[in-house]
Amino acid sequence: MHYKLKCISCNKIYEPNEVEYTCPICGDRLGTLEVIYDYESIKVSREEFSKYDNIWQFEKILPIEKDSYRTKLHVGGTPLYNMPEMAENLGIKELTIKYDGTNPTASYKDRASAIAITKAYEKGYDTIYCASTGNAASSLAGLSAPTKLKTFIFLPASAPIAKISQLFIYGAKVIPIDGSYDDAFDISLKIGQEKGWYCRNSAINPYLLEGKKTGALEIAVQNNWNIPDFVFVSVGDGTVISSIYKGFYDFYKLGLIDKIPRIIGVQAEGAAAIKRVFDKGEPFIPDDIETKTIADSISVGKPRDVIKACKYIKASGGYFISVSDEEILNAIYELSVKSGIFAEPAGATSYAGLKKVASKLGKDAKVSIIVTGNGLKDIKAIEKFVEIKRVKPDINAVREVIEEYDN
Amino acid sequence: MHYKLKCISCNKIYEPNEVEYTCPICGDRLGTLEVIYDYESIKVSREEFSKYDNIWQFEKILPIEKDSYRTKLHVGGTPLYNMPEMAENLGIKELTIKYDGTNPTASYKDRASAIAITKAYEKGYDTIYCASTGNAASSLAGLSAPTKLKTFIFLPASAPIAKISQLFIYGAKVIPIDGSYDDAFDISLKIGQEKGWYCRNSAINPYLLEGKKTGALEIAVQNNWNIPDFVFVSVGDGTVISSIYKGFYDFYKLGLIDKIPRIIGVQAEGAAAIKRVFDKGEPFIPDDIETKTIADSISVGKPRDVIKACKYIKASGGYFISVSDEEILNAIYELSVKSGIFAEPAGATSYAGLKKVASKLGKDAKVSIIVTGNGLKDIKAIEKFVEIKRVKPDINAVREVIEEYDN
Repeated sequence: MHYKLKCISCNKIYEPNEVEYTCPICGDRLGTLEVIYDYESIKVSREEFSKYDNIWQFEKILPIEKDSYRTKLHVGGTPLYNMPEMAENLGIKELTIKYDGTNPTASYKDRASAIAITKAYEKGYDTIYCASTGNAASSLAGLSAPTKLKTFIFLPASAPIAKISQLFIYGAKVIPIDGSYDDAFDISLKIGQEKGWYCRNSAINPYLLEGKKTGALEIAVQNNWNIPDFVFVSVGDGTVISSIYKGFYDFYKLGLIDKIPRIIGVQAEGAAAIKRVFDKGEPFIPDDIETKTIADSISVGKPRDVIKACKYIKASGGYFISVSDEEILNAIYELSVKSGIFAEPAGATSYAGLKKVASKLGKDAKVSIIVTGNGLKDIKAIEKFVEIKRVKPDINAVREVIEEYDN
Repeated sequence: MHYKLKCISCNKIYEPNEVEYTCPICGDRLGTLEVIYDYESIKVSREEFSKYDNIWQFEKILPIEKDSYRTKLHVGGTPLYNMPEMAENLGIKELTIKYDGTNPTASYKDRASAIAITKAYEKGYDTIYCASTGNAASSLAGLSAPTKLKTFIFLPASAPIAKISQLFIYGAKVIPIDGSYDDAFDISLKIGQEKGWYCRNSAINPYLLEGKKTGALEIAVQNNWNIPDFVFVSVGDGTVISSIYKGFYDFYKLGLIDKIPRIIGVQAEGAAAIKRVFDKGEPFIPDDIETKTIADSISVGKPRDVIKACKYIKASGGYFISVSDEEILNAIYELSVKSGIFAEPAGATSYAGLKKVASKLGKDAKVSIIVTGNGLKDIKAIEKFVEIKRVKPDINAVREVIEEYDN
């Protein structure tokens, strides 16, 4: 194997076949594992990567076997947009936007599900499951649909209808829990252990983060190896933000880039569990909360990757901030109008965070933000912007409406 | 100029600056124009194209000026999936699926809107408008949002809420007509002429089809120049299907491919206006109908590109078929489960058509289908597949549900 697993808390190192999910000493919450490579043995050069290829172009630094199953769906290779006018308005030097709403199931989570399915095949499982706020669920359902795996999904019944509809249309077996994501997560783990299914739960499964890190790798490749000073990421469980650090870290260790950006985590004010832990300082101790936010994808009160997220973000020189639901909604609108990118609430949270602190970053700051999901996944969230005033199919009636618009 | 405009009915040839939209002799309905190039003067080779680049890689055979405005949004370069198991089940040799739900606004129409916006800039307009069943609208709104153009949208107020919501979030000026798409179209043309706005209406604007043809060009490039025998396309106004023929025709005239596929048009039974005209034979005469179908994007009773669609499809050796709403819904489900591609109703219509006639195509048939829009655009259409049975957050309650699934 070209990689090993290392506990984020006790630093014990395991061979991949020694342990399935988390460190047996430190447990599920503190003992999430990181994948570490023998960087010196990996031969890799900048020239072998291209801008829009899917995630498998990075297979040398993914924890997968050479000939195992790969989803055919085009995961990754999503656009990175350079937005000089928006940067100027924000008073920074450069703004690039990584837009993952064009993945197969329209969210960043496809990067993780792709790896989870490959690992399920490698390990010989016939059933895979996850607990999810919605996007990991629809992602797993979509990517596993054309495979031979059976798929069970646990999610809060309150998830946006578009995400739930995706599950059914992909033929997944759906358990809509009358409770929170955190409830769904705990129950799913018990059931999954009882049944012996493969677990695609955030943080528990160490390989998911390796799929997610490909977003950071693509930022480096697509921005022609011009590495940003800051990367803004919305945060729920803490896995995506950890993965962004890990992606840059891997490229740094391989000698392909000469710095790691400062990673800034942006949480919804009503679900800022990781920010609270981070701000209290080391040693980082999980401290759970009740949540309330429109950004369903990051509505997490009991974050599962809290230790890794705090350690990595500290190592990067970054920090956490929080934004209100109103700031998130305004960010959705402004991002759509200024860039043409329509984001779901959690997707625009990174931009809301950037707006909040842009003036402190300095005029030479090069900034990247990750937009994690497509706005089409949660139409209800933006209903305050939608006002349908029906007009009779009559030329004079239409002329009147146009005049109102023109005034 | 490296191109001219030619009337589809009287064959009169115009310089681009002689006429803005349609042939003044034959009128808006019969006199739609085609863009013709001086193929011998265009130097082009297979090697210059790559699989996932956006549509601007084809600029040598697009009717645009060298340094004019190009949208930055990544239009085109959408995936082409090869599905050998699905082909085997259908009794054909090869099935490739062109999935355009990953475009910036999640439909094929982005290919046309990109060109329309470039032309509006070239021609110096400050306002652009369109009538649309929904996707052209959200596409124009999204791609014009970051530009200086004002955007007016006319569409039936009954369009799916996701498509209407996109318009508002992109800041377009929306006229929701209490009537059909055909009503919205006619009214928009009158208003557009009065106001002197640039028209991005299907068929009226000859350049849209040139944007749309890039889907065909990508099929050729992405399938390594292995050209399918048949291409199945869902049909409303007739512009997308015409564009597929035109794309292959252009590559054929440039000597890059040695055949043009037979193009098969698939219409909803309740909106089969072009099929009816085609089946009556030449001379093709528009013959309008009332429509009723769940496939809103192709619910067109007064198709605007009927002449071109009939002539091109006949030239290709193709034909038109129709499918019921039930067949369309089943096609959405089957396509999702078998391929992981979630299509809106019109998007899955091509697959419904293929299923209907696959057994007649022959076991050596190589077939491509176009999936024009993302299923997230019309969640309501699939509500019959979605059954949310809430489960208490209690391990025993969950165990019971799992047992039901397992039996």
